[in-house]
Amino acid sequence: MPEHITAKMIDDARQALRGAVIYTPILPLVSSKIAPFLPPKAELYLKLEFFQHVGSFKARGAYLGVRGLDEDAARRGVVTFSGGNHGLAVAWAGAARGVPVKVVMAKATDPLRIDAVRALGAEVVLEADIRACFAAVERIRADEGRHFLHPFNDEVMVLGAAVCGAEMLEQMPELDAMVVPIGGGGLIAGVASAVKLANPNIDVIGVEPTGGANMTRALDAGGAITMDRIDTIADSLGAPATLDYTFNIVRALVDEVITISDAELAAMMLRMRDNLGLMVEPACAAALGATLGGATLGGTRFAGKRVGVLACGSNISPERWHENTKLAGRANKD
Amino acid sequence: MPEHITAKMIDDARQALRGAVIYTPILPLVSSKIAPFLPPKAELYLKLEFFQHVGSFKARGAYLGVRGLDEDAARRGVVTFSGGNHGLAVAWAGAARGVPVKVVMAKATDPLRIDAVRALGAEVVLEADIRACFAAVERIRADEGRHFLHPFNDEVMVLGAAVCGAEMLEQMPELDAMVVPIGGGGLIAGVASAVKLANPNIDVIGVEPTGGANMTRALDAGGAITMDRIDTIADSLGAPATLDYTFNIVRALVDEVITISDAELAAMMLRMRDNLGLMVEPACAAALGATLGGATLGGTRFAGKRVGVLACGSNISPERWHENTKLAGRANKD
Repeated sequence: MPEHITAKMIDDARQALRGAVIYTPILPLVSSKIAPFLPPKAELYLKLEFFQHVGSFKARGAYLGVRGLDEDAARRGVVTFSGGNHGLAVAWAGAARGVPVKVVMAKATDPLRIDAVRALGAEVVLEADIRACFAAVERIRADEGRHFLHPFNDEVMVLGAAVCGAEMLEQMPELDAMVVPIGGGGLIAGVASAVKLANPNIDVIGVEPTGGANMTRALDAGGAITMDRIDTIADSLGAPATLDYTFNIVRALVDEVITISDAELAAMMLRMRDNLGLMVEPACAAALGATLGGATLGGTRFAGKRVGVLACGSNISPERWHENTKLAGRANKD
Repeated sequence: MPEHITAKMIDDARQALRGAVIYTPILPLVSSKIAPFLPPKAELYLKLEFFQHVGSFKARGAYLGVRGLDEDAARRGVVTFSGGNHGLAVAWAGAARGVPVKVVMAKATDPLRIDAVRALGAEVVLEADIRACFAAVERIRADEGRHFLHPFNDEVMVLGAAVCGAEMLEQMPELDAMVVPIGGGGLIAGVASAVKLANPNIDVIGVEPTGGANMTRALDAGGAITMDRIDTIADSLGAPATLDYTFNIVRALVDEVITISDAELAAMMLRMRDNLGLMVEPACAAALGATLGGATLGGTRFAGKRVGVLACGSNISPERWHENTKLAGRANKD
């Protein structure tokens, strides 16, 4: 158990977030419309975290990060880089406190997300690719003295996620397992901290896209790694690297990491629309996709289990949703 | 207060439904993605009843109806007519008890719904129009001795809806108003019964489509009426008539009925997709559409109020959803 995340820290974060973020609802997956697709005798509970402010759990950590700035730092402002959800969250949290925010984004980002960050009052700096984004963040940080709020490798981001995990424990008692998507690993590091402090017998299982499986590779390598290439429709899960802080928590606390293909993500996006009425981004389909599974995924692994599944990320344009789901036809061939 | 719906009856219905239907979650509409569209200083809570078994509140009453059959009646089976959601609910409830179900449906019904009724094991009888459906129900009832479970004008359907209303009261304390869609009036009759028994100061407001405003017309006429013509995309709300049992409860307990145009329904379907990640049928957009409102609707009426809004009905094919939402472009002109 990494000693720096304690029950007291999670409780304090929860107090700080009370009234500021949404205690998102739980959906028991017992409806006749979805029940036929569950693993045999499994009970699934879906945490509808995509209903969070700005559409993702990132609002929790971003709020803690902006809240923690002293007056001087708050005046200088915050900078971050983001594929969308983290940028939206920091822009939202900055606006709530009147703190100026700059978000560096790659030009290929879904235009809906870029527009949404601007609509929240943040300044967007567009760069050609991820390497250029990193350089721009360093430049802005040095030149303007802004606080850099990292998308995942930061204690506030992990604590924000831990509060989400604590809510899940409260809402879904006596779980056997919790299934959580992995991008950079901040979400699962927080959820696993909350879960293992409360009950080490609950398995914490991560899910990442096959084309962006940085955590799987890092666990194999035994240390943080940088990816040469990211190729997945789950842009919110395509972190270019693992980093030590979150990696060490994940290595200590997470029981297993599963990968899911883009075709399987696309098939689950369609199922979520057709059987649950939900239109969400690929990242949001990752954990449920792995839990309902195909032959290669969770199908039998979760039989007879009570499983909490985290669904996060509603920020996608209809155009990109339709483009993404065209891949679903390949699901059976993978 | 119609004397035949009592708190004891609602409690008994609730006990009978415990474990059989889904206690559907509540979503507080405080997210930054939807908050800008709320009436000034209003607090809205959305009851996500479209997550119910077979996608609508009808599961509650249908379950009570099938449960209440004696052994002899259960063996003979049930017949009903339906535009979709009620048929699905009765098929589902029949399958749960092993009771044979026949559902009479009009040929123009969304094929997704017809297929879904069949998939639940019920027999579908297709007829040309609503008049022919009524005749078929009477024939089957007489010839086969089946119990006719009416879509709305039946105590069990009202009691099922009352249980939904009781849940809302439990989930959203201290409401000023509850906004509920109206088709035949069974849902609002039940919700209003639960609400007014608990707290007569909560306003109960109904919403029906302009092209199927049977309740508005019946209230004006002072008695149940039959519609000459139904013309709305909200097929689940297009009841061809009001009937005495539910009409009398509505007249006694409902404070106001608002109408909403198809263009406004279509615009709200788009907003629910783009701002909440929900892809639902027109009926599901009715209550929220009227509460968020345009100039002609709830915009100012709900300012400063705490409002519970019932969202019900996820049974729509993607094709029909896209066809329906093409009407949204007309919303500003209506």
